[in-house]
Amino acid sequence: MHLNFTSEPRLADGVIERDFTLGEIPGILWTPESISTPVPLILLGHPGGLTTMHARLAARARRAAADGFAAATIELPGSGGRPKLAAVDEARTDLRRALGAGEPVNPEIIDRLILPLVEQAVPEWQVALDALLTLPEIGGPVGYSGGVISIGVRLALVEPRIAAAGLFAGSFVPRAIFDEARQITIPLHVLLQWDDEWNDRQAALDLFDAFGSREKSLHANMGGHTGVPAHAGEDAAGFFARHLR
Amino acid sequence: MHLNFTSEPRLADGVIERDFTLGEIPGILWTPESISTPVPLILLGHPGGLTTMHARLAARARRAAADGFAAATIELPGSGGRPKLAAVDEARTDLRRALGAGEPVNPEIIDRLILPLVEQAVPEWQVALDALLTLPEIGGPVGYSGGVISIGVRLALVEPRIAAAGLFAGSFVPRAIFDEARQITIPLHVLLQWDDEWNDRQAALDLFDAFGSREKSLHANMGGHTGVPAHAGEDAAGFFARHLR
Repeated sequence: MHLNFTSEPRLADGVIERDFTLGEIPGILWTPESISTPVPLILLGHPGGLTTMHARLAARARRAAADGFAAATIELPGSGGRPKLAAVDEARTDLRRALGAGEPVNPEIIDRLILPLVEQAVPEWQVALDALLTLPEIGGPVGYSGGVISIGVRLALVEPRIAAAGLFAGSFVPRAIFDEARQITIPLHVLLQWDDEWNDRQAALDLFDAFGSREKSLHANMGGHTGVPAHAGEDAAGFFARHLR
Repeated sequence: MHLNFTSEPRLADGVIERDFTLGEIPGILWTPESISTPVPLILLGHPGGLTTMHARLAARARRAAADGFAAATIELPGSGGRPKLAAVDEARTDLRRALGAGEPVNPEIIDRLILPLVEQAVPEWQVALDALLTLPEIGGPVGYSGGVISIGVRLALVEPRIAAAGLFAGSFVPRAIFDEARQITIPLHVLLQWDDEWNDRQAALDLFDAFGSREKSLHANMGGHTGVPAHAGEDAAGFFARHLR
């Protein structure tokens, strides 16, 4: 499947931004304005909703471009204008109800919320990767950055072209994904918001401990889910610079 | 009390290194080769033994100098050629015996090992700071970097000239120091070796949680006590660059 560029290139801050579709899936590609050789690529993960997330994604792409990297993202299944995933939406409603009532979250709800998303999103990321790597300006190696962490874990496990991953420990993780984490061996950079209202700290620490990678770092910062400090982005950029250059 | 320089300046890699004594206490000062204005200062903490630690301290000082900072250290009480602290040595023997036997460590041993060191070392660091800040090439602000973490905590609490601290979560911490940690408010950068054979991971995480600072980051990396990766030093340097410049 090929990328179809659906917008004129937009140039800002030394970065060229282009919208594309991959079949029915919308996406965005950012490349440094001036490049002479094919550049490494960072896949930008996110919780879904490219329009809502655009400003934050573009900022991460600018940081990647400053290091000479391209960045790309695609919409998640069920998000943005894509067909709804009724079962996932139902699980999300159940999760919010449990959290709102202060009840412990049944792991079965997490499975219903996350596993279908992982099952559908990971092959889509792989198809996107196939298409992105045919572009003359993009070479490799390839990194994955951001959430949904379960998607990042599965992708790191099944996709050998992912050389390094920067993961955001900010979501509920099914037991099956936790077990997959033990098999991951690529370098990992894990970001944890210490007082994340959407995340169980101990579960995040346990997941970090479980990763099989010999090189893994946990960077914990103060604040809630959306309060990641700017310097955390700098440290993550340093991680990718070490592993993708 | 004044610094008495006891060696010729040694120039290497753009850094001038000078030995000094402060009364009976030996120390080392590193300054960038070319500076025009008084520079910030990083106090380099360590577990004792300037001769043994010299190569590692000099490497940290070079990193500080690359950012335009001076660095200085003094010998710990009871270490190097300084008079032995018999009670501390006895506590260390008791600790090793307990660890060697696989026994739980009685907190009373930790108190006997660490508290006398803190009580004596912290005022010495303050006297050294007084003397260092009279030098024309050293201005401020001042940071504290490294172990012994209990010394860093006490110094950060009682010495208002310490603007930021990078601490190494690699030692046993008395309950009294743990309580002092809650009162710390300066920015903190805490390094944790995830599989540190000399450190209880959960105790380190609890201490990080206890710090009162609104800005604090925990950077956990793989490996044992002495296996801190080079990139951890880069991240720590970024922390001091943000807070001392």
